[in-house]
Amino acid sequence: MTEDTSATPPSTGEVAAFEAGIKFGSLYHQFAGTPVSPASADSLARAMEAAIENQPHCVDVQVAIRDADLREAIAAASAEYVELTGSLLDVSMRIEYEDVTVYASMAMEDGYPLMQVDSIERD
Amino acid sequence: MTEDTSATPPSTGEVAAFEAGIKFGSLYHQFAGTPVSPASADSLARAMEAAIENQPHCVDVQVAIRDADLREAIAAASAEYVELTGSLLDVSMRIEYEDVTVYASMAMEDGYPLMQVDSIERD
Amino acid sequence: MTEDTSATPPSTGEVAAFEAGIKFGSLYHQFAGTPVSPASADSLARAMEAAIENQPHCVDVQVAIRDADLREAIAAASAEYVELTGSLLDVSMRIEYEDVTVYASMAMEDGYPLMQVDSIERD
Amino acid sequence: MTEDTSATPPSTGEVAAFEAGIKFGSLYHQFAGTPVSPASADSLARAMEAAIENQPHCVDVQVAIRDADLREAIAAASAEYVELTGSLLDVSMRIEYEDVTVYASMAMEDGYPLMQVDSIERD
Repeated sequence: MTEDTSATPPSTGEVAAFEAGIKFGSLYHQFAGTPVSPASADSLARAMEAAIENQPHCVDVQVAIRDADLREAIAAASAEYVELTGSLLDVSMRIEYEDVTVYASMAMEDGYPLMQVDSIERD
Repeated sequence: MTEDTSATPPSTGEVAAFEAGIKFGSLYHQFAGTPVSPASADSLARAMEAAIENQPHCVDVQVAIRDADLREAIAAASAEYVELTGSLLDVSMRIEYEDVTVYASMAMEDGYPLMQVDSIERD
Repeated sequence: MTEDTSATPPSTGEVAAFEAGIKFGSLYHQFAGTPVSPASADSLARAMEAAIENQPHCVDVQVAIRDADLREAIAAASAEYVELTGSLLDVSMRIEYEDVTVYASMAMEDGYPLMQVDSIERD
Repeated sequence: MTEDTSATPPSTGEVAAFEAGIKFGSLYHQFAGTPVSPASADSLARAMEAAIENQPHCVDVQVAIRDADLREAIAAASAEYVELTGSLLDVSMRIEYEDVTVYASMAMEDGYPLMQVDSIERD
């Protein structure tokens, strides 16, 4: 019988990238739906950064809630706030696992919030 | 046939209390599970207050994450952070709906986080 | 000095309405943001009902995720799923607290998901 | 000047592992905090599977809420339900990205819910 596939343990880079993915999924699904307005956006962004930086191997998180898009969404809803969604967020993170550093980010691309690994560094 | 029950529209006080309940359920289930440590607790508490104050009729929210209990939970887990639960939270709110003000709070009682209406004021 | 306001403990009806509000806020902020498609909508609606029915005094929860609006939202996003928001939900609940029954619901009104107490019954 | 690090784009395996991590973070932080009892656990587990399987590259999700631990947690709280936490969950997933399949899981290890990549297969 011929083996078509080879199963291996993950490499250090793959584990590092897995850890980075956990942080993005956590950040997004913990905070999506939070009521947000121009007045509360900054406190929310800071809390998101500090909360996710608690997670293992997560050395830096930067969150921006895009003010112009937030104001536009609020105006479109004829409301005073909206619920946080990916379309309002720019996120970047640095994850360090053993000798690997992962730089990853989330931003809008073609109208859809895309999470991606930007680059991998090895010491 | 005899009517055993009478269905009525809600009173102003009942609507005001309903609005207060919405804010407590929202606050709790939006933020429960957030990674929290002594270093990040304050930013989280401030973001929770500002987020929920966006909601209609919600004029004041005060959130405290109890530092001693947080440190104890982290030590018990041999971890550097824990996930936010009701056992770490003291919350009080003031909701104004028409001529009714609702004062409500959440705190531990018999080992369980209890949400309750403390008092109702009418102008 | 003249008192302009009178602070009283909540009535049974107000406590019942507060309890109803908690359930709506919980349901909404626990599940908003969940990935949902026509194939997964029914399992999500059933889980939402069963989860919230665990909460005290909550005797019945009915959740419908509106199929046509869900399909339209997915088509508009050129995606295969969307995140659950209030614009896709119809919810009704029955809360019983002491001798008071609260009927409450959430549905779209003027393009906005509105949570409200429909009626109050006393035995 | 000597370069100490080399920055590269992620490999296919690293992107696949990143995608797997996103699913674990999403599942955990979307559903942690949900009220759960023995009667509602199965509907919740099925909804979690179906929700996360909507996400890109996610071909299979298996969720079990451990009944004995759930009943023990409820008894310890003298309650009729508890909020879902990692200590009650076993999760396994299969993620396919291009020619790479990632098998990943979450289970308790030393009293802590550990998410990990179990193996990587290449066609």
